[in-house]
Amino acid sequence: MIKPQIPLLLISFFTLLIMLPKSTSARLHPRRDGTPPSSSSGGGDGKFCLSWRLGVEANNVVAWGTVPRECQEEVESYMIDGQYEEDLDLVMQQIFSFLNSIPLSFDSFDAWVLDVDDTCLSNLYYYKTKRFGCEPYDPVGFRAWASKGGSPAISPVLQLFNKLLEKGFKVFLVTGRDQETLGQATINNLHNQGFIGYQRLILRSGEYKGQSAVRYKSDIRQKLEKEGYRIWGNVGDQWSDLRGNSTGNRTFKLPNPMYFVP
Amino acid sequence: MIKPQIPLLLISFFTLLIMLPKSTSARLHPRRDGTPPSSSSGGGDGKFCLSWRLGVEANNVVAWGTVPRECQEEVESYMIDGQYEEDLDLVMQQIFSFLNSIPLSFDSFDAWVLDVDDTCLSNLYYYKTKRFGCEPYDPVGFRAWASKGGSPAISPVLQLFNKLLEKGFKVFLVTGRDQETLGQATINNLHNQGFIGYQRLILRSGEYKGQSAVRYKSDIRQKLEKEGYRIWGNVGDQWSDLRGNSTGNRTFKLPNPMYFVP
Repeated sequence: MIKPQIPLLLISFFTLLIMLPKSTSARLHPRRDGTPPSSSSGGGDGKFCLSWRLGVEANNVVAWGTVPRECQEEVESYMIDGQYEEDLDLVMQQIFSFLNSIPLSFDSFDAWVLDVDDTCLSNLYYYKTKRFGCEPYDPVGFRAWASKGGSPAISPVLQLFNKLLEKGFKVFLVTGRDQETLGQATINNLHNQGFIGYQRLILRSGEYKGQSAVRYKSDIRQKLEKEGYRIWGNVGDQWSDLRGNSTGNRTFKLPNPMYFVP
Repeated sequence: MIKPQIPLLLISFFTLLIMLPKSTSARLHPRRDGTPPSSSSGGGDGKFCLSWRLGVEANNVVAWGTVPRECQEEVESYMIDGQYEEDLDLVMQQIFSFLNSIPLSFDSFDAWVLDVDDTCLSNLYYYKTKRFGCEPYDPVGFRAWASKGGSPAISPVLQLFNKLLEKGFKVFLVTGRDQETLGQATINNLHNQGFIGYQRLILRSGEYKGQSAVRYKSDIRQKLEKEGYRIWGNVGDQWSDLRGNSTGNRTFKLPNPMYFVP
């Protein structure tokens, strides 16, 4: 009965080894060795991909075309194993807590702005076929997907939408989708997912073709303010939804590590 | 030799169980069950604390006084086990790549703005004594720490600083530290850590007392622009360093989950 305990011990040892965090020594000092910033794969792909995703969400990583190949697994796991939904929920808690602090005027000019793609409607199914953003943007493929009008609602955002209406806000949905080719499909999709009762859906009309989302959306929001609306909150999955002019009293960045809109 | 294989199999089975991700079923649909956003502890403290930290870095979680108690371990591990440094490195890569794209004028008006606390100089040692931000802000304690002038440089930022000087930028250090009480200690600390050759160190003078960092720093940057400086980049660990007016062509948010400056 002695021999069989050896593999047992060995397995326990290797199990422990595998499960230990990569570095257990506390490095309290920021690195002082004068080495330049590490290469893209840094301290292992796992850590690099976490950094990359944080960089995207904090608007440090911009104008990227595709998810780094080595991060496909990380992004896929993030999107489908629960952390994405957890992150969404936390943003919603922040929004609800802000909502309760707003002194409403009930003059029909208290407004909120919501983006559509990956804010109201999820394109996760589509991006699954694009290796979660590892494949370059495919305008024809995306148009075909969006034309079907089958994107599911992002449930916490639908709840927010209904809460906003209930409280008396005017909700403006502002999207970079092309009005001519995707207008009707978008109206249908929002309706079949329960986004009913918004003040206005604003799609990209001809005059804004080719403009960056920051400029186009800033212009739209400025026009809303000129109409007298007070934009209390502005929610989007891209920093281009939230930057520029007339951004609103508070902006809320929903997570999206799958693509970048300039 | 058959019996001993049973514990072996059992151990392998439990090892596998432990190492499997919490949920292996791909939840491609955002939650559609109509439940309200989950409570603060959400899907377990680990997930919640990741969400909270992301919320801080994306400027969704604002005006918070202390790190949530249940997140002390997560924040501590983040700061000392390497991910913080990895995240810093990634931001630096983005900055260096931006730097190389800037068309310099060599007229002495190409400028960068850097914050000081937890941008140039690390207060990690101090915050270790404050349970990594779980204890409320202690102005007396912080002043005592800062007065010593012993905060270590954040090495990648020191490298950036030297690269900026080498390229010919004018570097402005803009800090919310009180000029009267911390001016000399800050000058000494920057010097003893190698921050030598900056254009100007701007501390909070009497006229800005009590103002939010966003207003104070916006005002300083506007004055720099009025002097003719072009602010190409603006680096800070707080969103209040990066928001407001004259924010610079690009802003870079360094990670800091330990405290919030309004």
